[in-house]
Amino acid sequence: MKDVSQEPLPLLAGRGAESHKGDFGRVLLIGGAPGMAGSIAMSALSCLRSGAGLVTVAAPAASAPVVASFCPVYMTVAIGKAEDFRESLEAATVVAIGPGLGENWDTLLPLVLAANKPTVIDADGLNALARGSMLENVHARCVLTPHPGEYGRLVGDASLAAKATGDDAERVEAAGVLARRSGASGAVLLKGARTVVADGERHAINKTGNPGMATGGSGDVLTGVIAGLMAQGLGPFDAARLGAHVHGVAGDLAAARLGQISMIATDLIDELPHAFQRLDPTPF
Amino acid sequence: MKDVSQEPLPLLAGRGAESHKGDFGRVLLIGGAPGMAGSIAMSALSCLRSGAGLVTVAAPAASAPVVASFCPVYMTVAIGKAEDFRESLEAATVVAIGPGLGENWDTLLPLVLAANKPTVIDADGLNALARGSMLENVHARCVLTPHPGEYGRLVGDASLAAKATGDDAERVEAAGVLARRSGASGAVLLKGARTVVADGERHAINKTGNPGMATGGSGDVLTGVIAGLMAQGLGPFDAARLGAHVHGVAGDLAAARLGQISMIATDLIDELPHAFQRLDPTPF
Amino acid sequence: MKDVSQEPLPLLAGRGAESHKGDFGRVLLIGGAPGMAGSIAMSALSCLRSGAGLVTVAAPAASAPVVASFCPVYMTVAIGKAEDFRESLEAATVVAIGPGLGENWDTLLPLVLAANKPTVIDADGLNALARGSMLENVHARCVLTPHPGEYGRLVGDASLAAKATGDDAERVEAAGVLARRSGASGAVLLKGARTVVADGERHAINKTGNPGMATGGSGDVLTGVIAGLMAQGLGPFDAARLGAHVHGVAGDLAAARLGQISMIATDLIDELPHAFQRLDPTPF
Amino acid sequence: MKDVSQEPLPLLAGRGAESHKGDFGRVLLIGGAPGMAGSIAMSALSCLRSGAGLVTVAAPAASAPVVASFCPVYMTVAIGKAEDFRESLEAATVVAIGPGLGENWDTLLPLVLAANKPTVIDADGLNALARGSMLENVHARCVLTPHPGEYGRLVGDASLAAKATGDDAERVEAAGVLARRSGASGAVLLKGARTVVADGERHAINKTGNPGMATGGSGDVLTGVIAGLMAQGLGPFDAARLGAHVHGVAGDLAAARLGQISMIATDLIDELPHAFQRLDPTPF
Repeated sequence: MKDVSQEPLPLLAGRGAESHKGDFGRVLLIGGAPGMAGSIAMSALSCLRSGAGLVTVAAPAASAPVVASFCPVYMTVAIGKAEDFRESLEAATVVAIGPGLGENWDTLLPLVLAANKPTVIDADGLNALARGSMLENVHARCVLTPHPGEYGRLVGDASLAAKATGDDAERVEAAGVLARRSGASGAVLLKGARTVVADGERHAINKTGNPGMATGGSGDVLTGVIAGLMAQGLGPFDAARLGAHVHGVAGDLAAARLGQISMIATDLIDELPHAFQRLDPTPF
Repeated sequence: MKDVSQEPLPLLAGRGAESHKGDFGRVLLIGGAPGMAGSIAMSALSCLRSGAGLVTVAAPAASAPVVASFCPVYMTVAIGKAEDFRESLEAATVVAIGPGLGENWDTLLPLVLAANKPTVIDADGLNALARGSMLENVHARCVLTPHPGEYGRLVGDASLAAKATGDDAERVEAAGVLARRSGASGAVLLKGARTVVADGERHAINKTGNPGMATGGSGDVLTGVIAGLMAQGLGPFDAARLGAHVHGVAGDLAAARLGQISMIATDLIDELPHAFQRLDPTPF
Repeated sequence: MKDVSQEPLPLLAGRGAESHKGDFGRVLLIGGAPGMAGSIAMSALSCLRSGAGLVTVAAPAASAPVVASFCPVYMTVAIGKAEDFRESLEAATVVAIGPGLGENWDTLLPLVLAANKPTVIDADGLNALARGSMLENVHARCVLTPHPGEYGRLVGDASLAAKATGDDAERVEAAGVLARRSGASGAVLLKGARTVVADGERHAINKTGNPGMATGGSGDVLTGVIAGLMAQGLGPFDAARLGAHVHGVAGDLAAARLGQISMIATDLIDELPHAFQRLDPTPF
Repeated sequence: MKDVSQEPLPLLAGRGAESHKGDFGRVLLIGGAPGMAGSIAMSALSCLRSGAGLVTVAAPAASAPVVASFCPVYMTVAIGKAEDFRESLEAATVVAIGPGLGENWDTLLPLVLAANKPTVIDADGLNALARGSMLENVHARCVLTPHPGEYGRLVGDASLAAKATGDDAERVEAAGVLARRSGASGAVLLKGARTVVADGERHAINKTGNPGMATGGSGDVLTGVIAGLMAQGLGPFDAARLGAHVHGVAGDLAAARLGQISMIATDLIDELPHAFQRLDPTPF
């Protein structure tokens, strides 16, 4: 695999004067079961802050009002209302599944994969993927975002799983193996101090971020950022790479302002605008 | 139609020392069905931030508590409680209908139109208007705020609809046609990069705003602003024209602070106070 | 009646090093029926920001969760749970009743008056007082805070009611008449551009504030401030006088920051800390 | 008992580059009954702001959605779902019980104590301890955080209770007696103007803080801070001592910004990041 870490970061196209919100995608985010409503809410808000045009959250009916209460901008739909859910899925140009989804909605992932849209699979979405042995159904427009534990469950191979916590070279190898093993080489983002992004042919190692980001909800934010970038036209590898970079910059800004001890995931969201404003054609 | 774009912006009267909240109107905003509660909440908050004295949201009973949770200042009433709704409508001096209303409340629009009050019709309110072929029931105190898609559904004429996405002259023509076709020439605000306001006899083209405003909820904010201005005595054309201007300034301030990628609709609301503070008797 | 407008404002005692929260009172605020939950929430938050030690809101069971969702600091109790309500009333050192109470809870006012505690009666509490012809049950520890409309309903006398909207001298007379007519000369705060406070023997006219405060919820904030001051030991007249002053300063700070058009009631709450920090032994 | 007040404050270990959220603990906070949902929410947010990796709140099913609505970062679990609660307790590395727990959940404390994890017992948790005469079940990894009233109920001895409000020497004695009397000398934090921390062998007196902190919810914040510090590896005495210090610094920062009258408990949470940023190896 080619190391593209030193190549310029992918860029979002500028916004034409005649743009309307439909030009920046319709994202459907699926998750937020009772007790975890905040997870998908953080993804959704991060997705909006990353430039998506329209964002809808699909959550179980019992938690949808809690999801809704966090932010008036995104819409919600009850997962259990099958027709509403299906309509939302059809209308979406990008899908993200997993944050706070829990273990009771494994039937959704096959529907999402069958829709064949740009898709981010995270957290309980990855666990559903492992439980359902559906790795071969993953397609080329997917981004998988496992941490090493989720990675191990996905590959079901102890020596490979060990590499996911190894040095950079081992982690690059591990990410590449998963990308090639899944259906058609979508991108894999393997979380860690130095996050690796790979799509089977190329890889990059992210340099931004700090250990203050080791706090609950940090990954939910990343999911939303990547989905938002895909909604604006970036491909899986580029969206994952730029997303990891911006997410880390937001973390560095939060740490500078609040300290590594006290910073929490919502601080990352608050810093996303400033992180995007710092984007430059060259990586840093 | 006369082009008044270069004429001074309409102004709100100053607030007399003896003012009380009743002097600044009672606005009833109707919308916010389940899953879209935030839409009407953003309209209501924008209406307050635009100077309305008292604001009430009418929403379905299932979503009213979510609407209420976003802001303690406005009141809520359940649409389904027919007598409460009727009382609220009677008490209102201005009505806005549409943001997040959904497709299940088309029976409300005839009641609103029959009340013959200064009224903003937006979003699903416009769709209800189209579905019910009620264009001729629109009266002279109404402001219609379609984007080109909604415009097309309202006029049901492909060549006219095409003009709504054309150049300035075509869009002015399209807005004027709709204003004259509706019952008694209320104002039409046709959304786009350069928003057009027309009432059949005159028109103006708005110059403020930027493509970062192409994001979900931006129109909900505009609806609230226009309703708030009407509550303070501006007529339909003036309220739509000044509303488009202030809305765009708020967007420009948000873009300067947060960037076009990351700005979202609630940022527009946060900037409304600063936008109003910049108002000047001359347009810019 | 003696005009004490030029005398120094009453002051809160400093907080001793050994203070605990019980030293600053337990306030029970009653109101916030469905659709108006935000009213009592604003009173409660204002009460906390004015220095009260412990604050509880009693609201109907249906709206109590919405009230609770606005702020984690105060507690809530369901009005309808009679024993819980009675316990809360017994535990309180100060009571406020009215903001958003609606018309269905007139039975509460007699209980509150019978408890004979420092009490603020506002809004629907005043309407209940008028409907129940209970003016003679008002006791010397009460503050009534009518606007001219509520005043008229309380006195039931058209010529007196007209004075409530007259010049300063007429308004002072009107306030004094009500203070003397109610049971035992508690204080009356008659709202208006220049708010009058009177207790039958003395009066003061407030000079702070601006017409930007003519916006929904402004009065709810004032109710909370006065209750908070009573919780720290001020008597009815002093609490009403200092409360009107601080409330107006908060309004002036909000207007300076956000403008008279855009300022809303929650901005007043945000400015209360700064208003209290400006307090000085001499009026301004 | 040795006075260690002049010894350097305990420090949190720095965060290694390879850290992940699991390194900073999983905290389960138990409380927040209906009407008091905000109490445990403030503890949970404070816990996150003090560096805990993952935070879950266990609350009654009726109030869990209100708890959840305050912050999207922590998770919630319904106390009454016995298996879910048991799983959460097993997964936790630190437990805190008490803020807003009410009187109906006394059966939880024995389960918590039997789990033998680092545990903070506060507020209604202390009352449950007193009601159940379970002082001897307290173990060496517990921190008890009584104010003098709760202290009195725990020791059931009037002359000892009187010492809890006495001078520094008496309060140190009182705290030490309770620490030795409980099962195995965990730490006791006795609240007051000068908070005392003791574990039976040593004690320290806190010097930070001010009487503006005598406001509802201040103790809920402290509980969250101590639990968060334990989640990062501090023992009971060190966590209580550092927690009291940081809590007081946050209070001093809030007072400087907002004044002692107006500051409320959520302001303490807002200042926690700045308080942690000021930490220094030497006490001040």
